[in-house]
Amino acid sequence: MDQTAFMIGFSVMAIASLIIYATGDKKYPFGHHTLVHASVPFIAATAYLAMAFGLGNLTLDNGTVVYLARYADWSVTTPLLLAGLVMLAFHEQGKPGEMGGYLTAIIVLDVMMIITGLVSSLAENAVAKWVWYLWSCAAFLGVVYLLWGPLRAIAASRGSALAGAYNRNVALLTLVWFIYPVVFLVGPEGLRIITDATSVKAFLILDIIAKVFYAFYAAANMKKALSHATPVGAVRR
Amino acid sequence: MDQTAFMIGFSVMAIASLIIYATGDKKYPFGHHTLVHASVPFIAATAYLAMAFGLGNLTLDNGTVVYLARYADWSVTTPLLLAGLVMLAFHEQGKPGEMGGYLTAIIVLDVMMIITGLVSSLAENAVAKWVWYLWSCAAFLGVVYLLWGPLRAIAASRGSALAGAYNRNVALLTLVWFIYPVVFLVGPEGLRIITDATSVKAFLILDIIAKVFYAFYAAANMKKALSHATPVGAVRR
Amino acid sequence: MDQTAFMIGFSVMAIASLIIYATGDKKYPFGHHTLVHASVPFIAATAYLAMAFGLGNLTLDNGTVVYLARYADWSVTTPLLLAGLVMLAFHEQGKPGEMGGYLTAIIVLDVMMIITGLVSSLAENAVAKWVWYLWSCAAFLGVVYLLWGPLRAIAASRGSALAGAYNRNVALLTLVWFIYPVVFLVGPEGLRIITDATSVKAFLILDIIAKVFYAFYAAANMKKALSHATPVGAVRR
Repeated sequence: MDQTAFMIGFSVMAIASLIIYATGDKKYPFGHHTLVHASVPFIAATAYLAMAFGLGNLTLDNGTVVYLARYADWSVTTPLLLAGLVMLAFHEQGKPGEMGGYLTAIIVLDVMMIITGLVSSLAENAVAKWVWYLWSCAAFLGVVYLLWGPLRAIAASRGSALAGAYNRNVALLTLVWFIYPVVFLVGPEGLRIITDATSVKAFLILDIIAKVFYAFYAAANMKKALSHATPVGAVRR
Repeated sequence: MDQTAFMIGFSVMAIASLIIYATGDKKYPFGHHTLVHASVPFIAATAYLAMAFGLGNLTLDNGTVVYLARYADWSVTTPLLLAGLVMLAFHEQGKPGEMGGYLTAIIVLDVMMIITGLVSSLAENAVAKWVWYLWSCAAFLGVVYLLWGPLRAIAASRGSALAGAYNRNVALLTLVWFIYPVVFLVGPEGLRIITDATSVKAFLILDIIAKVFYAFYAAANMKKALSHATPVGAVRR
Repeated sequence: MDQTAFMIGFSVMAIASLIIYATGDKKYPFGHHTLVHASVPFIAATAYLAMAFGLGNLTLDNGTVVYLARYADWSVTTPLLLAGLVMLAFHEQGKPGEMGGYLTAIIVLDVMMIITGLVSSLAENAVAKWVWYLWSCAAFLGVVYLLWGPLRAIAASRGSALAGAYNRNVALLTLVWFIYPVVFLVGPEGLRIITDATSVKAFLILDIIAKVFYAFYAAANMKKALSHATPVGAVRR
């Protein structure tokens, strides 16, 4: 049952990676966004392959199965998705150091969110489980703050077309990312309201929205914005 | 006893992260330094929380406790602090590739220093312990060489105000970082002259100086330097 | 026997790191390439030291020894070598975001290639072993595609001298990197045609070519190319 979900995950992600690259615009300033968005499902495909083979699927004493490959995947793919948003906010205008500072802070918070989420899922002691869950949520709020506060202001300073694309992409990503900790909360790692099989399917659907649908949505928004905007990047080149 | 030290570490680092961000200058060219300096104690807070919960606290056969969370923390926070110094030395003037080369080399040496330090602390065979300790010190000398040699020369070429800030920051960081391998040497991981409790307290004090006090000190030095200097960055922007 | 090979590996790599740095050009635009090429054998030296001490040398049930330090080394050194090629293709002309997109995609594929190679070497089930081996090869083909397709075109757009250097460096690297999966295939991790001792020696020779000889070869090609080309970087500085 889970096996089928994992093989669907592997196939969808592997094919999506190829399609995103093959159909994506490879010219400046879209090419690097295409490359990043094609890299994300390639990593997810590898993680689903690992889960299908049972690699890193830990069964805890209480019967909960923790999928380590998921967290390994997320700890790399979520920083890549955030990097895409930071690049869009600065849209080739920030100085490397400035953009690097935002990338560093948001990736630190994000990776801490993933690692502490893994620690929470592994904790068998209830106090530890919920302290780590809350600390993970605190890190997530830090990510959301940076996306909706300073980075949104930076995107806004690049003109209304670009700001619109940034806002639409951040809105979808934030919405989908808010559902992950809810599935975690009600799933076997948390309150055990839904079964492992349901949780696996829920994460599969979320992963496809957050990694595949989002890639096409983000590229379309960026393209529409730049067809309206003065091509500042090209001039500075 | 250790527990108290770990909870103090967690609290100080968590609050310091918020205060460094809240009180830090968020405008260019200070904002990205503020973000990096606020990220560092957030990671340290997470590591102290792990140590408080006993997560990754390994007890070796000889009774020595090795705190894995410490090394995980250091392997990310020390590269961030070094990245801040490299960014200051180039101060928005280097080409990305050039700055990237220095970042790569200094971070490689630094992470090797941390990993080999961990290996040394875990080694129960005396020869292995001291070979790894020496290799870790060799990597540290490489870091110090880059900071005081080529990077200092690059900072000097940016004018005396900026060079002064760079030199003061490097001096404090180098001084504090030299004490870490000494505490390691005399502690339970090395010659066992001081107890685990003393070693935990010593590292706590060092961590607060190197991550919290240093953040304020570095920001103040940079601010003073740039109020005297021609704002080259702004012109090029 | 292996011990001798590991100590030779350690010594050659440690000395090569110092020589590459000491004899390398430290001025712009060569300095950062020198730093990256000196970092690579420093990491390899540390990995050979680990293998000599037996650290991370896992013996599987079927008697095969898997050297984890090798994979840890490769997962950092191969991205550094690829980063050098990406920097050469763009040669200080690309926008940070554009270069970042290529770096991200090629490093994601490359690290996936190493990790799945490790998984293949650890798999005791034949189906899993070959599925992971093929997935690792697919990632490698992705790396080769990026090097010979879009990155080669970018290098070509920088003029014939630079393109020549890029092509020569990529040709050597690709040739040597193609031999690694073959040694893996015929070695104890795969078809068990050659012994562990032969495999260790073969990888030692490959490592010396790919990390030491390549460093000198790449630097010489780049130097020759830039002595013929208009120093665009210097003008833009």
